[in-house]
Amino acid sequence: MDVSANNRTGDAYVVGVDFGTLSARALVVRVSDGAEAGTAVSEYARGVIDRSLGDGAHFRGELPPDWALQDPGDYAAALREAVPAAVRDAGIDPAQVIGIATDFTASTCMPVLADGTPLCQLPGLAARPHAYPKLWKHHAAQPHADRINAVAHERAEKWIGRYGGKISSEWQFAKALQLLDEDPELYQRADRWIEAADWIIWQLCGTETRNACTAGYKGIYQDGSYPSRGYLAALDPRFASFAQDKLAHPIAPLGGRAGGLTPAAAALTGLPAGIAVAVGNVDAHVTVPAAGPIAPGKMVAIMGTSTCHVVNGAELAEVPGMCGVVDGGIVAGLWGYEAGQSGVGDIFAWFTANGVPCEFAEAARRRDVSLQQLLDEQAGALPAGSHGLIALDWEGGNRSVLVDGRLSGAIVGLTLATTAPEIYRSLLESTAFGTRMITETFDRAGVPVTELVVAGGLLKSAPLMQIYADVTRRPLSVIGSGQGPALGSAIHAAVAAGAYPDVPAAAAVMGREMRDVYRPDPDRADTYDELYAEYVRLHDYFGRGTNEVMYRLRAIRDRTWQAREGL
Amino acid sequence: MDVSANNRTGDAYVVGVDFGTLSARALVVRVSDGAEAGTAVSEYARGVIDRSLGDGAHFRGELPPDWALQDPGDYAAALREAVPAAVRDAGIDPAQVIGIATDFTASTCMPVLADGTPLCQLPGLAARPHAYPKLWKHHAAQPHADRINAVAHERAEKWIGRYGGKISSEWQFAKALQLLDEDPELYQRADRWIEAADWIIWQLCGTETRNACTAGYKGIYQDGSYPSRGYLAALDPRFASFAQDKLAHPIAPLGGRAGGLTPAAAALTGLPAGIAVAVGNVDAHVTVPAAGPIAPGKMVAIMGTSTCHVVNGAELAEVPGMCGVVDGGIVAGLWGYEAGQSGVGDIFAWFTANGVPCEFAEAARRRDVSLQQLLDEQAGALPAGSHGLIALDWEGGNRSVLVDGRLSGAIVGLTLATTAPEIYRSLLESTAFGTRMITETFDRAGVPVTELVVAGGLLKSAPLMQIYADVTRRPLSVIGSGQGPALGSAIHAAVAAGAYPDVPAAAAVMGREMRDVYRPDPDRADTYDELYAEYVRLHDYFGRGTNEVMYRLRAIRDRTWQAREGL
Repeated sequence: MDVSANNRTGDAYVVGVDFGTLSARALVVRVSDGAEAGTAVSEYARGVIDRSLGDGAHFRGELPPDWALQDPGDYAAALREAVPAAVRDAGIDPAQVIGIATDFTASTCMPVLADGTPLCQLPGLAARPHAYPKLWKHHAAQPHADRINAVAHERAEKWIGRYGGKISSEWQFAKALQLLDEDPELYQRADRWIEAADWIIWQLCGTETRNACTAGYKGIYQDGSYPSRGYLAALDPRFASFAQDKLAHPIAPLGGRAGGLTPAAAALTGLPAGIAVAVGNVDAHVTVPAAGPIAPGKMVAIMGTSTCHVVNGAELAEVPGMCGVVDGGIVAGLWGYEAGQSGVGDIFAWFTANGVPCEFAEAARRRDVSLQQLLDEQAGALPAGSHGLIALDWEGGNRSVLVDGRLSGAIVGLTLATTAPEIYRSLLESTAFGTRMITETFDRAGVPVTELVVAGGLLKSAPLMQIYADVTRRPLSVIGSGQGPALGSAIHAAVAAGAYPDVPAAAAVMGREMRDVYRPDPDRADTYDELYAEYVRLHDYFGRGTNEVMYRLRAIRDRTWQAREGL
Repeated sequence: MDVSANNRTGDAYVVGVDFGTLSARALVVRVSDGAEAGTAVSEYARGVIDRSLGDGAHFRGELPPDWALQDPGDYAAALREAVPAAVRDAGIDPAQVIGIATDFTASTCMPVLADGTPLCQLPGLAARPHAYPKLWKHHAAQPHADRINAVAHERAEKWIGRYGGKISSEWQFAKALQLLDEDPELYQRADRWIEAADWIIWQLCGTETRNACTAGYKGIYQDGSYPSRGYLAALDPRFASFAQDKLAHPIAPLGGRAGGLTPAAAALTGLPAGIAVAVGNVDAHVTVPAAGPIAPGKMVAIMGTSTCHVVNGAELAEVPGMCGVVDGGIVAGLWGYEAGQSGVGDIFAWFTANGVPCEFAEAARRRDVSLQQLLDEQAGALPAGSHGLIALDWEGGNRSVLVDGRLSGAIVGLTLATTAPEIYRSLLESTAFGTRMITETFDRAGVPVTELVVAGGLLKSAPLMQIYADVTRRPLSVIGSGQGPALGSAIHAAVAAGAYPDVPAAAAVMGREMRDVYRPDPDRADTYDELYAEYVRLHDYFGRGTNEVMYRLRAIRDRTWQAREGL
């Protein structure tokens, strides 16, 4: 931590808490300049619940494939542990803290009572999977998403265009419809269906709020309303009043004040009662102000296992294959656009674990670096184009711009001389091509991308960043914080506390970017123009229906495994 | 060795010698039944000369890329070492040996004097690369092959159709034209240009012979003549009399008697002077009689680092993408067809060395099996189609039916769950698809393939063999000898010695196949029909000009490396 930032007499601080997939991180930030004063992490005791609901009395055997649940008790525990620890780490007086804000994975949503109690915490419901929050990566509601999309297109619902034509199985409506289908009794007992992003705020300030970001991107809230009763009845007559009964609530703008910290939450966190609690937010979107001044066209790519691309636009446009566009979805007053790549770091990790021979692992051990670092180095040292390979970055499916989870990865150009670092480099490049495809699609759709800023864990890989600069032919800026989401939350806390008039004003002071850290090399960029043309050709061939081999291979695979399991 | 085969009083034996890329193997075989009585191997001291011509006085630094030479002294040494050792191993009296025959890699060809002395053995020429035999895999004559093909098509030479439309850079004419271009003085000093397959016979019987197999497949000898003077002059005026001066000689049928073993050769080998020496032959083609009864439509696939497919046909047909069709090219009286896959075992070895993580290498060590054996087992245990992958087997280019060394490998269908054994299985399958493409092309061209027999090192992999049976939907026979080429040579020796009237008669007695060892499973074959359809679609897309991405990737790669080397 920056010691000069700590405990300067009279300084005001805010706390941002970033709720991730496996842990939550609290960050104490000085309001006057965004200096990061202290931090602490709380691992979730139950992590991702994807096998069984636990042992002993609760044991009910394996969960079906594609399920992913969480325990809201872990979220509360993180407030209790990480917040006071971060304040201690900062060495400040808790009385100096004037606000708190949080961000969450999304859509992570759950059924609760009218007072906010999660159903899974009610007596007798701990063994019912549908009583738990469904984590963003719960993928078992695909049939429900399919129905949602089919009916939307049949009825020509105008909101479907705001989501690139497809609602994801990861989102609120698919998960709620699965609950109704598979455990209708629990569906009835749920007074409310709420994002964890909003639920955590409820725990802090004691009143329900709904934030503009998750309502818009995950809750199909557009132009002031949810999907109509008629549409919902067409999905299932029992679902007709879903939005009215279980979602409807005034939508609060990001950076707004949800309320004051309750005495109970003050006791939990060690922070002063009554301080500002900001409206909830999503981890990707909240990162935008952490990257400094807000501007339309400034795309922030949060690059980790997957990549989220978020960018503000002054105008509404329908961008093919985007995840969604939401009025005020990133910052009030602008249209917030989201796109993404399903697999990025995941692809590199998969290859590192599955495709690299011993000699490299041994070399990494000798040098005491990780295998991935070694590959990064060796791949980074290769001249652009020297491996003769082109890869499609779809090992985890394609989120944007094809929105197709049935697609898969491909590598073309292998020879008997091809080495593991060469393939690794082709995979790094494939994700850069995927990002270029997204930025070009935005440009063409009338949402120009004028700046590209990288946040997230992958910015540590300089070779990867240089490839992105060369492939996109853009100077690459990087966020100035290793805790982008938590800093973004802290900025929202400062606005909710009234320290700044709005998020852009706070972002300009408290956010940080390092501009143009990686600059494209014209020769390499020329080579990548050629390779990108090959990528586009294969992208369209495999991804736009010319050869649906990837669907068929997946179908054969699934059929074969089913036959083996006797299904 | 089969002890019962050894030294039965009065039994006659023959010796077959198989000259491979790195060593020669002699096999002593009983004439009456083909029993293998003894064997011995001689490693070539200088092996493949692809870096420099040696040390000391001969040193001249690095050879250019793609060069591959050999030392004919190694061939003679193999006769001196391996033949007597094999006879000793058999425990027979050398006087029981009635004939000797050899087979060779091809086209491995060299410049010699009128008495058969290789130019590289002349004083002062040991440092001249072009004075040495150019091994089959010498690939530095590609520009010359390109010229040969271009001029042949311009002039509509009718023989070009007998070679699937393309003469390979590996063959006699390309290598001779390179000699003329690059060392015209040596070209002039060469009285003859001869296959090692014929040169070794010259050493044994003291007179020059030319065999029908190499003359036809490697020497463009068709319908009784070599390419015309006019054609050769069009290549280069100095080349006009090449065939007439340096090749022309009566063509001897396979299994014919080239002459009697000279006293000098008898001293060298320890065999009786005057015994029959058979006409030369090629390692792949000579294997056909070793696999038992000769019949049109019986395709023998000699599967090793690459695969040669040889099959006799009663009629002449032009099969698209075959390597060649030669009258009597495999056995006198039938049209011999040859096709091939440039990379087979090479692809598996490449992946094993470059694409398999440590855990597998460690598991193989624990079980004391090779990594490739472990992969074979694990890949073999997977249900057909369960990996969701399809691969093109072109990591080493494509020999048949596309005849295109610029093609490269591709894998489609990768996911974050894909494992190394799954990829390995997809590569095994890709080569089986390649073989099915070849057999179907023969079938369609009017050369029906009625039986498939496997010879060569890869037949040891039962999972691979089962995949070939399932993919080709044919029962798979396997050769009954681990020394197919040497046994095939021994059969030719027996015919040359007059023990049998012709090669088919000898093959029926001395050759061995195990019929229908691997039978297709109908369910797996159905799955493979689906996957093969995908293979064909991708094969044609990448291989027949729809998307020439592989050419472009290779060109970018080569350009990049040249730039780096400052070329």
